[in-house]
Amino acid sequence: MANESWIPGYSPSTDFSLANIPFGIISTPEDSTPRPAIAIGDFALDLKTWLAEVNREKLTGIFSGVDIDQLNHALSQPTLNVFAALGRPVHKIVRKGLQDVLRKDTPHLQLLRDDDNVKAKTLRRLSEVTMHLPMEIGDYTDFYAGYHHAYAVGVMFRGPENALQPNYMHLPVGYHGRASSIVVDGTPIRRPVGQILLDPKAEPKQPVTGPTRKLDIELELGCFISKPNKMGESVDVNQAEEHIFGYVLLNDWSARDIQAWEYVPLGPFNGKNFGTTISAWVVLADALEPFKVKTEIENKTELQEYLKGHEEKTVFDIKLEVDLRTADGSMTTIGRTSSKYLMWSFPQMIAHHTLGGCPMRPGDLLGSGTISGPGGVEERGSLLEMTENGKKEVLLAGMNARTFLKDGDSITLRGFCADDGDGVRVGFGRCSGKIYGAAQR
Amino acid sequence: MANESWIPGYSPSTDFSLANIPFGIISTPEDSTPRPAIAIGDFALDLKTWLAEVNREKLTGIFSGVDIDQLNHALSQPTLNVFAALGRPVHKIVRKGLQDVLRKDTPHLQLLRDDDNVKAKTLRRLSEVTMHLPMEIGDYTDFYAGYHHAYAVGVMFRGPENALQPNYMHLPVGYHGRASSIVVDGTPIRRPVGQILLDPKAEPKQPVTGPTRKLDIELELGCFISKPNKMGESVDVNQAEEHIFGYVLLNDWSARDIQAWEYVPLGPFNGKNFGTTISAWVVLADALEPFKVKTEIENKTELQEYLKGHEEKTVFDIKLEVDLRTADGSMTTIGRTSSKYLMWSFPQMIAHHTLGGCPMRPGDLLGSGTISGPGGVEERGSLLEMTENGKKEVLLAGMNARTFLKDGDSITLRGFCADDGDGVRVGFGRCSGKIYGAAQR
Repeated sequence: MANESWIPGYSPSTDFSLANIPFGIISTPEDSTPRPAIAIGDFALDLKTWLAEVNREKLTGIFSGVDIDQLNHALSQPTLNVFAALGRPVHKIVRKGLQDVLRKDTPHLQLLRDDDNVKAKTLRRLSEVTMHLPMEIGDYTDFYAGYHHAYAVGVMFRGPENALQPNYMHLPVGYHGRASSIVVDGTPIRRPVGQILLDPKAEPKQPVTGPTRKLDIELELGCFISKPNKMGESVDVNQAEEHIFGYVLLNDWSARDIQAWEYVPLGPFNGKNFGTTISAWVVLADALEPFKVKTEIENKTELQEYLKGHEEKTVFDIKLEVDLRTADGSMTTIGRTSSKYLMWSFPQMIAHHTLGGCPMRPGDLLGSGTISGPGGVEERGSLLEMTENGKKEVLLAGMNARTFLKDGDSITLRGFCADDGDGVRVGFGRCSGKIYGAAQR
Repeated sequence: MANESWIPGYSPSTDFSLANIPFGIISTPEDSTPRPAIAIGDFALDLKTWLAEVNREKLTGIFSGVDIDQLNHALSQPTLNVFAALGRPVHKIVRKGLQDVLRKDTPHLQLLRDDDNVKAKTLRRLSEVTMHLPMEIGDYTDFYAGYHHAYAVGVMFRGPENALQPNYMHLPVGYHGRASSIVVDGTPIRRPVGQILLDPKAEPKQPVTGPTRKLDIELELGCFISKPNKMGESVDVNQAEEHIFGYVLLNDWSARDIQAWEYVPLGPFNGKNFGTTISAWVVLADALEPFKVKTEIENKTELQEYLKGHEEKTVFDIKLEVDLRTADGSMTTIGRTSSKYLMWSFPQMIAHHTLGGCPMRPGDLLGSGTISGPGGVEERGSLLEMTENGKKEVLLAGMNARTFLKDGDSITLRGFCADDGDGVRVGFGRCSGKIYGAAQR
């Protein structure tokens, strides 16, 4: 595929390259209706408006094999759920058709490139559009598939002998998260108030109520479901790819002190449900296909049949970074890792999640769990790990240091895949949020 | 209030009495569109159709203070979410107006009672309507507020000294459940397949994959949210009643063996997400108001401020029963208890859930946790407790016995409040489900 586009200022090394074509939901100052778009270079292409401008016969040519009425309907919704539900074969054709319209040597000159009227109506600088949640999220599940994170946290709380629970190597451990507090990139996050046990060793245990003192991040990859499964039916691990719409970055903000007191025996609750941020643009499964690799984590455990047998390359080598910006404006990259350190693949997570017949719906979101590398503090996806639960400071630019987040701090997750050979980059854009002060009580 | 209605065959001792007026979503053989209705005696009144038949001026009279356009809009939706969002003052007026139309001495004769045409269009026998999920459920949270259940299960697994975790008396412990697998009364439930550790003592621990051998029930009360709170803002415990739409019975089906292997450290997952059944008719908060009592569970712990201060009578004395019907048709009531054994009230659960700013939306569902009484096996809300995790059998009618559920078994939860003085009963109808065999593998 040619990697050049006629889009002004385009470079193949942008996150939103021709090889990417991520989908999102935008609105503009003139039209506050949220609607589907793709990102290309520094621009968003308003798909709803564009489809209405283009001759129907031409659309049939570009998106050969796709029902144009269905597509029009799907791409005039306020979320991407209906488009996701059309299924991966349709996503493939639509992505390819849009690449054909946007590439430098496009034969479809009049569809966009050479029609100034249509361009003016449909192409907008990303800096001028407002992004919305891309999907209506029915259910959100958060897994725990980042091996180095699970191990490091386990060592911290239970020592190296019992770091991982006995089930960890047998199944992708996960829990149900809170869908209502998932927000899009850029949404401010309020420091939560909660019950905290200040002295865990004192007896009797006496909590206090106040703002969390241990506000943390979790660097994760998110996966959106497209094709549903019926209640009572499971998804085969080898068919699970067909149930995936695409991927986003995900920051599972966590209040470690609230979590520590509440989580036994039923799992994390208020320590997590005050906010989860995802990046705005959904990178389609097909765009990430060239970056599949074998997981770096060797699991010597004999797997149960339903988790076995899918292809060797099951995870992605997405370079991931965590930036912390303090209120004084100084910025430090505090973590760098890769999603190749996930021990379980998303197809395995889907096979496990549906094993007992749990139905998944288009728009359901799966989080990978925190991703950390095998190295030192600079490869960690949470401050819990970087600071050994607050015991050591992370040094920042501008003479700053942190154990956990302060009010006014901003966190930005970034992620991209790069093929050094041809300079192609497929990236996720930003997943960011700024902390503001807790509610007065 | 007069307790007599002109509805054919009406008796004040029906679950769906004039003092109740529960809301649900019905469809009929002639019109498959799900639409709002109320239940009265053995009948459903199709509200969408009825509102369209009644003169607008008359509606303004009956529902004085309610915006009739808003009400029409809300009661022509396929779920009750929009109606719930109108808020408790509106629910109160609408319930009262409908009681006026339905009571024996109604002054509104032409609105329904004496108009055979309207009656034929809007009143249907309950046996002839199909019930649907009453709400679109965004998020489902399950609490653990049944003290005797939590204690009994704790003793079973950790002994009497450590039966309750240290946080139990300080906060309403809860976890995020799965919304996609919540189904309405009567929906069959498939026995789930999952990973099971057959011999928990053997090392190394080696699970197998197969149908659960420990399929259980959990007798719970469910609570639907009406008024939302914004992300970042909490709900005061004394204001929380205004955020409640109404109540249903809830059976949180559980696979104990799957749950036991998976739940450490992040909580229940596949052991629960294969199905949760709720009763079809939402009993409004106002209908239960006369049956409020002080909880039977004395908590001597000094509570955090945000959980304190709401009125003394905080839980309901709803008589609850669990019926088990085997495939041969014989039926046994295996459990009888009351919701007065909940230690935490729903207002306290809401105050805790939103303490850190978690947003709740109309249609969100809260489960109380399993409700058990202080007595013997006949007062328990789960087979886990009745059988001491499968060690003892529960004897049933027809020479049957069970530890956990077999394929072909049906469970029906029932619940009602009764005022012995005036014979008024406010009930929930059925919450039932029949088990069918696991998927072939």
